[in-house]
Amino acid sequence: MAKDKQPRKPRAETPKGFRDYFGADVIERRDMLAKISEVYERYGFDPLETSAVETVEALGKFLPDVDRPNAGVFGWQEEEGDWLALRYDLTAPLARVAAQFRNDLPTPYRRYAFGPVWRNEKPGPGRFRQFYQCDADTVGAPSVAADAEICAMLADALEAVGIERGDYIVRVNNRKVLNGVMEVAGVLDPADPTKFEEERGIVLRAIDKLDRLGPDGVRALLGEGRKDESGDFTKGAGLGADQADAVMGFMEAKGHTGAATVARLRDVVGVSALGLEGVEELETIADLLSAQGYGPDRIEIDPSVVRGLGYYTGPVFEAELTFEILDEKGRKRQFGSVAGGGRYDDLVKRFTGQAVPATGVSIGVDRLLAALRAKGRLGDAAAGPVVVTVMDRDRMADYMAMVGDLRRAGIRAEMYLGNPKNFGNQLKYADKRGSPIAVIQGGDEAAKGVVVLKDLILGAKIAENATLEEWKDRPAQVEIPLADLVSEVQKMLAQ
Amino acid sequence: MAKDKQPRKPRAETPKGFRDYFGADVIERRDMLAKISEVYERYGFDPLETSAVETVEALGKFLPDVDRPNAGVFGWQEEEGDWLALRYDLTAPLARVAAQFRNDLPTPYRRYAFGPVWRNEKPGPGRFRQFYQCDADTVGAPSVAADAEICAMLADALEAVGIERGDYIVRVNNRKVLNGVMEVAGVLDPADPTKFEEERGIVLRAIDKLDRLGPDGVRALLGEGRKDESGDFTKGAGLGADQADAVMGFMEAKGHTGAATVARLRDVVGVSALGLEGVEELETIADLLSAQGYGPDRIEIDPSVVRGLGYYTGPVFEAELTFEILDEKGRKRQFGSVAGGGRYDDLVKRFTGQAVPATGVSIGVDRLLAALRAKGRLGDAAAGPVVVTVMDRDRMADYMAMVGDLRRAGIRAEMYLGNPKNFGNQLKYADKRGSPIAVIQGGDEAAKGVVVLKDLILGAKIAENATLEEWKDRPAQVEIPLADLVSEVQKMLAQ
Repeated sequence: MAKDKQPRKPRAETPKGFRDYFGADVIERRDMLAKISEVYERYGFDPLETSAVETVEALGKFLPDVDRPNAGVFGWQEEEGDWLALRYDLTAPLARVAAQFRNDLPTPYRRYAFGPVWRNEKPGPGRFRQFYQCDADTVGAPSVAADAEICAMLADALEAVGIERGDYIVRVNNRKVLNGVMEVAGVLDPADPTKFEEERGIVLRAIDKLDRLGPDGVRALLGEGRKDESGDFTKGAGLGADQADAVMGFMEAKGHTGAATVARLRDVVGVSALGLEGVEELETIADLLSAQGYGPDRIEIDPSVVRGLGYYTGPVFEAELTFEILDEKGRKRQFGSVAGGGRYDDLVKRFTGQAVPATGVSIGVDRLLAALRAKGRLGDAAAGPVVVTVMDRDRMADYMAMVGDLRRAGIRAEMYLGNPKNFGNQLKYADKRGSPIAVIQGGDEAAKGVVVLKDLILGAKIAENATLEEWKDRPAQVEIPLADLVSEVQKMLAQ
Repeated sequence: MAKDKQPRKPRAETPKGFRDYFGADVIERRDMLAKISEVYERYGFDPLETSAVETVEALGKFLPDVDRPNAGVFGWQEEEGDWLALRYDLTAPLARVAAQFRNDLPTPYRRYAFGPVWRNEKPGPGRFRQFYQCDADTVGAPSVAADAEICAMLADALEAVGIERGDYIVRVNNRKVLNGVMEVAGVLDPADPTKFEEERGIVLRAIDKLDRLGPDGVRALLGEGRKDESGDFTKGAGLGADQADAVMGFMEAKGHTGAATVARLRDVVGVSALGLEGVEELETIADLLSAQGYGPDRIEIDPSVVRGLGYYTGPVFEAELTFEILDEKGRKRQFGSVAGGGRYDDLVKRFTGQAVPATGVSIGVDRLLAALRAKGRLGDAAAGPVVVTVMDRDRMADYMAMVGDLRRAGIRAEMYLGNPKNFGNQLKYADKRGSPIAVIQGGDEAAKGVVVLKDLILGAKIAENATLEEWKDRPAQVEIPLADLVSEVQKMLAQ
């Protein structure tokens, strides 16, 4: 570049699909995660913080094609070396750690983790390429006691962050029960699990549409198929009436108590050994939870939980918030799911060849924060500092001493550090900071040994264009002895 | 890849130069950063969390060459788009944010940030390519009151994390004073700051060697040059006697009080306007700090602080820990620097063309953690959970109920979730977890309504090969009524 040519200025922009978090957003998330961590640690889970960068080989799912990996991850190649990439979730790094440190870690290994993950996807409104996940998993525990523990922990975590009992429900289902039902319905052959894959897909999708289509619609999809209002035809799974009955019975098996649900499910799975195993696991989970006092008001067996059934191998669970919010169109709707998880048994097999049973849960950090916001549980975090204004720039040491006194008393406080010439700017600054109180001391006040405290929460509306003279006439301000600064500020903040 | 060919298993390895943090390491860092955050927030600083990814254009320092950027950052090119990279520090993202959001942010903008940064460098022992930084900066405050505030905040932060008063000192110097000295010494021409660059470099390096070479050695380097013991000759700056006196006077200007130091510096900089400005700034900083009660036992004016003087434009500061530790060879030495910073005025100029004054500090997170470890201030974080063992796998619900009671009382506790067949494995597990207490209840105990508490801290040494029989004979275990489980565990933990 020629030296006399002025290079164009760089753009000050966040990369597309990324964002910055300011002030209260950072604090609210941090405080929520701290409360969740406390619960997880009480349950014996240890934190794990893996590096953001993994080898593409260890991440597995995404392999470099001819040029570079681009299917979903941010990746690059080392100089003459490995392809590296940013992690896209917290489970893949856990699998790598569980394999790499298998001789050093306790078995079972209970670990929790939270932190950003990255997805190389097309960004959209509200969809970012970096976001937080918060996971807890138990690796190496074949017993469903591990699943029960995670359900209890999830309920405790939700209450710890401020979701009241009655405002959430943790629902538990079991993949094995569904497979038993598929067996009874004739679309799963234990001797050849690859058969009937298409039919099982149709059944799964039909179950998932119960809410929208109702029992008749689902039954049509289980049979020959269904024509919707527009006249379009969706092909069905082709089940006979008895077979469809089994699936419908599965979906409607939920009773008033866990015991009733389990009894019905036992009927539904009939002679399927796998199905019975699944029902017994659900029964054990319900027993273990009830022994700790977790009743169906908090955690219930619910065969309608289908989400993730395709991925998991045993118990699955989902936490739903049951209170209503207004959607963007002003209609009432349930808040919905904020966490989900289940048992998956192939965590480290890719690395070691050895199957290691694992179960875990992932909390949707942004969803849960939105729920807390909807319930009015957030907001204190945004409290701005008390601002000590600078009326006389030769007396900065005095103002700094006031700030020092306030801070030593644990009060968030600062002196105005901009150009003090325009007093209105100082008040605008305090306003922008969400400051609750401005402290003012001009020459007259200093001579009398007093300061003026201005209650900015009361005065917020008029602060915009106030001059000092207008300001002094407002009732929201008091003159107090300098010696009482800390106690009077404390009093005003407590109001 | 042919379907019948078994692919080789992926390696379960952290990428070179990266590491994972387990349990106590995560907790200790988190707790330390929480204490620092609390201080920063009390000072009115707001947290900012920028994305890990920036455009290479915004990062600035590192530009893509023909192929890809590789000078120090991890970078990659978007499909038909920008070059992106992981941030290499927290200052470059602050500059981008300060420019991008300049109309929305308050002025001055006080922000703190901590989080990982990434460097694409050759990893070495103890040198990682991802590590934590913890920064606080005030953007848009020309007054040195902002610098004084950061020095006070740094002292408070060190005390908050557990460094006692007397074990640290914050040293303050000013780049302008040094420039004044350079002017007096004839190696800085205010009319043409590019002249004498070589000489100034020699002077700076000479000052930095005072500890090692002593005053005579430094004086030789300021003059014609210096021959070391081996006979090698280092060329000097060529200053005359009076000029060298000025530099020596600068280095030795530290007096017993800030006022004495300032008076000597005033002599040294003589007629240099810039130098006098620097001295007055130091005087103001000392006055502002003393008005808040920060005396030279915590923060002192020290002309020997040279680190970073080349980079900064005004006040510079450095926090040093003054207690002694043993180095790897068993020799006593001072712990040394854990934080540093200063004033730099070109933060957002690259983006907007407008100079914005800023000052800030960066704490070396790993260094400070190492210091706390050396002082024995860490360690509690590693406390393992109480482990309820499984003697009888049909009674898991009973064991889970015990765990539930302990957890509800706020005690970290878990039931053993591995295969319960080998009881020795359960005790080995508890040992590996750093568990303080094992709870044991076999059939006999259950019939009597009692449980056995085993104090594992006492019994740690013998746990390795213990069978249940040996175990029961140790004095470190007590039989207690089941109803007293929580209170007895609390009692044992309090010991």
